[in-house]
Amino acid sequence: MDRKNDRYLKENQVAENGLLDRRLFLKKGLQFGVITSLASTVTISSAKDKQSTSQNKSSDLTWMHEPGKSFSTYGLPSKFEDNVLRYPSQNEAVPGNGVSWTPLHLMEGAITPNGLHFERHHNGVPQIDPKKHRLLIHGLAKKDLIFTIDDLLRYPMQSKTCFIECGGNSNSGWNSQPSMAEAGYFNGMVSCSEWTGVSLSILLEEAGVDKKAKWLIAEGADAFAMQVSIPMKKALDDAFLGLYQNGERIRPENGYPVRLIVPGWEGVLNVKWVHRLKLSNRPVMARNETSRYTELQPSGKARMFTFVMQAKSLITSPSAHMILKQSGLYQITGLAWSGKGKIKKVEVSADGGHSWAEAELQEPVLDRAFTRFRIPWHWNGKPTILKSRATDETGYVQPERQQLLKERGRQGFFHYNAIINWHVDNDGFVSHVYDKDETKKTNSDISIDSDWN
Amino acid sequence: MDRKNDRYLKENQVAENGLLDRRLFLKKGLQFGVITSLASTVTISSAKDKQSTSQNKSSDLTWMHEPGKSFSTYGLPSKFEDNVLRYPSQNEAVPGNGVSWTPLHLMEGAITPNGLHFERHHNGVPQIDPKKHRLLIHGLAKKDLIFTIDDLLRYPMQSKTCFIECGGNSNSGWNSQPSMAEAGYFNGMVSCSEWTGVSLSILLEEAGVDKKAKWLIAEGADAFAMQVSIPMKKALDDAFLGLYQNGERIRPENGYPVRLIVPGWEGVLNVKWVHRLKLSNRPVMARNETSRYTELQPSGKARMFTFVMQAKSLITSPSAHMILKQSGLYQITGLAWSGKGKIKKVEVSADGGHSWAEAELQEPVLDRAFTRFRIPWHWNGKPTILKSRATDETGYVQPERQQLLKERGRQGFFHYNAIINWHVDNDGFVSHVYDKDETKKTNSDISIDSDWN
Repeated sequence: MDRKNDRYLKENQVAENGLLDRRLFLKKGLQFGVITSLASTVTISSAKDKQSTSQNKSSDLTWMHEPGKSFSTYGLPSKFEDNVLRYPSQNEAVPGNGVSWTPLHLMEGAITPNGLHFERHHNGVPQIDPKKHRLLIHGLAKKDLIFTIDDLLRYPMQSKTCFIECGGNSNSGWNSQPSMAEAGYFNGMVSCSEWTGVSLSILLEEAGVDKKAKWLIAEGADAFAMQVSIPMKKALDDAFLGLYQNGERIRPENGYPVRLIVPGWEGVLNVKWVHRLKLSNRPVMARNETSRYTELQPSGKARMFTFVMQAKSLITSPSAHMILKQSGLYQITGLAWSGKGKIKKVEVSADGGHSWAEAELQEPVLDRAFTRFRIPWHWNGKPTILKSRATDETGYVQPERQQLLKERGRQGFFHYNAIINWHVDNDGFVSHVYDKDETKKTNSDISIDSDWN
Repeated sequence: MDRKNDRYLKENQVAENGLLDRRLFLKKGLQFGVITSLASTVTISSAKDKQSTSQNKSSDLTWMHEPGKSFSTYGLPSKFEDNVLRYPSQNEAVPGNGVSWTPLHLMEGAITPNGLHFERHHNGVPQIDPKKHRLLIHGLAKKDLIFTIDDLLRYPMQSKTCFIECGGNSNSGWNSQPSMAEAGYFNGMVSCSEWTGVSLSILLEEAGVDKKAKWLIAEGADAFAMQVSIPMKKALDDAFLGLYQNGERIRPENGYPVRLIVPGWEGVLNVKWVHRLKLSNRPVMARNETSRYTELQPSGKARMFTFVMQAKSLITSPSAHMILKQSGLYQITGLAWSGKGKIKKVEVSADGGHSWAEAELQEPVLDRAFTRFRIPWHWNGKPTILKSRATDETGYVQPERQQLLKERGRQGFFHYNAIINWHVDNDGFVSHVYDKDETKKTNSDISIDSDWN
């Protein structure tokens, strides 16, 4: 770099180790080229260009010399993107029990396409005929009601773009050794869609809620008969019956023909294939709200009904397994979300947490939805640690791992939302690391893969 | 209906023939059930329930008695939704020339899932290897630049949710007889995605734009070598190179590996498979901006370079081919969009345009994106005509068909954005109609299907 660039970087640095003003590319376009041009300057049609390979960036025009493929009634990704997949991790004894992870590290923007929305099933994906599916509302109500899917489709609809996150997402963070997986295959039990459906309050008020009904028990029509308990206040506030996902009918693995959507709360509460809603004066105390989806604390007592997913963020690029090929300008980008509302800010550190700068938030910033953040970074070629830290509109700040361990101990399993560190080494290789003194081995290490049940 | 309901409807009516306050379901849930309950009141576990068919709405629990399907690496819609497809309409002699329509009438919300985004190709879909694709910037610039896709992926990104609409969308509206097709297969050459990519201004400024460069010529790497001309001002203002569509890499039929996105302007300018951007002092006058994508006016002169897609709206439900099974409460819903900015309001008429009421707009209302609108309607069982009318933030109002024909004549072909009428007959069957006196046959009727070239 010449002196002009040095001065330019210095003038625009907003935190140590090369973090630059987040508005750098918004105000004016030219800076990226000035600092780190990635383009080749070429002489068009030179003999050398025509003969050579990709090294000099000459273009292959094969596809301009033959007619392309015809139209399709339902499109699929390019065959050259066949590595962009959900990553299944299953209970070997029960193949329908486990998860498949969203490849967040291979994605951009804030919407999760339907084919890549994460899955968490307890006994596989039922193949439900919508004509035979029924939704029953019963219990502490003036009358019992039963709905066909066609009935539900005639009710007034609402749309909400929001994330759904499994309570167990990122839980290898509780382990004494950092995860070796790519960012999405460690943190991708979270996805964000535009859901459309019928407000639960319309149906519950039609049934006539008894004053004694403080809980809503929801049950899915899968072979596990998933049951959960939701406080009636939340059910009446903003829960809805999701029928459409990003414009089309909800996918089988996401609850076709109808899924309960409980914005901002644990994924398990967003009951898929929902067929029964019982109004009750107490929670049902089902297996998945007692022995599971609870958090054992240092005191030996377990936290229960920990509904809200707290604010969290994750740098998706650069992230584990990626390689920065040369020093120079990069865009650090990632996702932030909070079960309590909108993301207020995301700070990024390029020096292991000593200094922080605010990243640009992609508009629109929506309530309980993925918020994409981005900030330019000039990497000087030396090893360092990247971090991101989300703050939501309630003022809640995503904790460092030490702080989370101090509060929760080592057996929490669920609700892991600590700051994630990406280490960049001399060769630009990125990996997950803990801060120093965090890797003390204990007997309580969780073996994630064997723990599906 | 009893007297209480009559009074209730009267109190909440906001335009003639049953249009009700758009906030009816937002303020309080209970009204839908009060006026038109679709649920059955049931006695649980009665013998009658167990034995009978869907008529009494008993539930089929087959899928609770067997393990479901296992995890998948890339998901697909339910087999029970196999009618929700794009509808291809092709040139028989050249199968890669034509369109496939988005089934807007079968969808909800504002996002188009990638599998259903409309297609318009001139010589099929090239199957491009991203490693061999290059983007060249040349012409009136300080230097010529060439980029690989990997280069582009390292540049700073931006996301924008916006519609892309073919200039020829809805063009059967110019015909003397109303379209017989479903709403999407008549108006579905428009879709809306979250696009993510690199601002063109960054790359153009890196090349160094010559003051004489007033036009940008974009060329696609398909066998048609689609070329268009875009004013440099627009190119520098908000055009970008789309690399991601709803979170994943752009689909082949939407321009993989890279597509030019020109928010709010004619679909044809959003050049797919873009591989060349030439800075020029004049437009290229290519076939698709001279003989096509221009509009012959009554004067005999043709309009050219009619870039902006004007405000438009469409009721998607109820719409053509649907049947209202009984009188009672329905939700009228549809989409509105404008190439000039945000939608300010959508008015709906349930009496053929005599009276109008404002529909609820789904938040967030975004610049040059689909805006979903909804309004409750109590159908009295008698024939009528439904209409929707969009107004954008510039104050532009979607015209009635008579007004459009008066301004533009009958040979416009492109840029048809008139108000669309849905007629509901005695039996609740919905079809497309024109207002009276609009169906005069002329010699200039367009034969859409034979016109692909």
